[in-house]
Amino acid sequence: MFITFEGGEGAGKTTVLSILHKELEDQGYDVLATREPGGIKISEKIRHIILDPEHKEMDARTEALLYAAARRQHLAEKVIPALREGKIVLCDRFVDSSLVYQGVGRGLGIEEVMTVNEFAVEDWMPDVTLFFDITPEQGLARIDANSAREKNRLDMENLDFHKKVYDAYLELAAKYPERIECINADQPLDRVISEVREAIGHHTNK
Amino acid sequence: MFITFEGGEGAGKTTVLSILHKELEDQGYDVLATREPGGIKISEKIRHIILDPEHKEMDARTEALLYAAARRQHLAEKVIPALREGKIVLCDRFVDSSLVYQGVGRGLGIEEVMTVNEFAVEDWMPDVTLFFDITPEQGLARIDANSAREKNRLDMENLDFHKKVYDAYLELAAKYPERIECINADQPLDRVISEVREAIGHHTNK
Repeated sequence: MFITFEGGEGAGKTTVLSILHKELEDQGYDVLATREPGGIKISEKIRHIILDPEHKEMDARTEALLYAAARRQHLAEKVIPALREGKIVLCDRFVDSSLVYQGVGRGLGIEEVMTVNEFAVEDWMPDVTLFFDITPEQGLARIDANSAREKNRLDMENLDFHKKVYDAYLELAAKYPERIECINADQPLDRVISEVREAIGHHTNK
Repeated sequence: MFITFEGGEGAGKTTVLSILHKELEDQGYDVLATREPGGIKISEKIRHIILDPEHKEMDARTEALLYAAARRQHLAEKVIPALREGKIVLCDRFVDSSLVYQGVGRGLGIEEVMTVNEFAVEDWMPDVTLFFDITPEQGLARIDANSAREKNRLDMENLDFHKKVYDAYLELAAKYPERIECINADQPLDRVISEVREAIGHHTNK
């Protein structure tokens, strides 16, 4: 089973992923928790190019192609082998992040960016995607409060950009209701976790 | 005017490009001669990842996406500005190289790789593409004879790979006769050059 975690900056998805990971392992499941580039050498090198704050001249299409390339290598070396071994794979961000950040945030269009991602992903789309729903104002406030986390090139984009991203997530959730489960991320952690359990339950019981 | 140069390894296209460059400048044209990554910092870094002989684990789709990313950045920073200034742009390898090396050589399919390249290139397809036609046996023999040129990861692929690439070029030339001009590259240089002049003439007189 392939589960992806999506949402704006500061939505708390990484925290929830790590709690769910432990919980599933405690229940006896074999789990791989990962996020691109995930220790994959080639993907790490690609991501280094994308996130280098000196690369201000990077074209939006170049960026989208590089994300898709890093995604492909991580998928091929790490995710596909784990799924073939019957593991549950929890992946922090996947195709939907590109659809919103490049497709809408950068104005390239969801359909155009989907074409490139379909090439990268082939038939390995997630079984379920958890969208952690929190407004960008609240999400960014959480990042500001956490001084331990260093801001990268994407964090530094302005609030309008993050609002476009948020609206795009809502649009995707409406477009793919079979795959994307909306989780209210603006509530205490234990409530968020129980929504997540319920959402995954919907898909395992299908 | 945007002219691209295509062909297998050792077809002589780079030599012809440099002669044509000088000839056009002597005639008073403003010319940009380039090849990806072409001194573009981001594209150079991407190509470095692709050609690193240590990256034997690189997936064919990752490779195709990286070529498209390097192409896009070189196009955006160098080719499009030159074309907008009215320059003649001579580019050593472009989309067709990916169609044959990744689409056919790696078995990803021409149509699939074209999709990714259309995303990268948008409306900036070449006005004319010169295909330097020489069999892979002859082309590789030329490289072997030239000890000054270091072999990279792609050169090291076996002869069957280069034969697939050659057949794919012939297929593309048949598929896009309006854009691709076949140049017999297995003849003395002055004869090759005069075929090239004639082929370009066809397109400037249209």
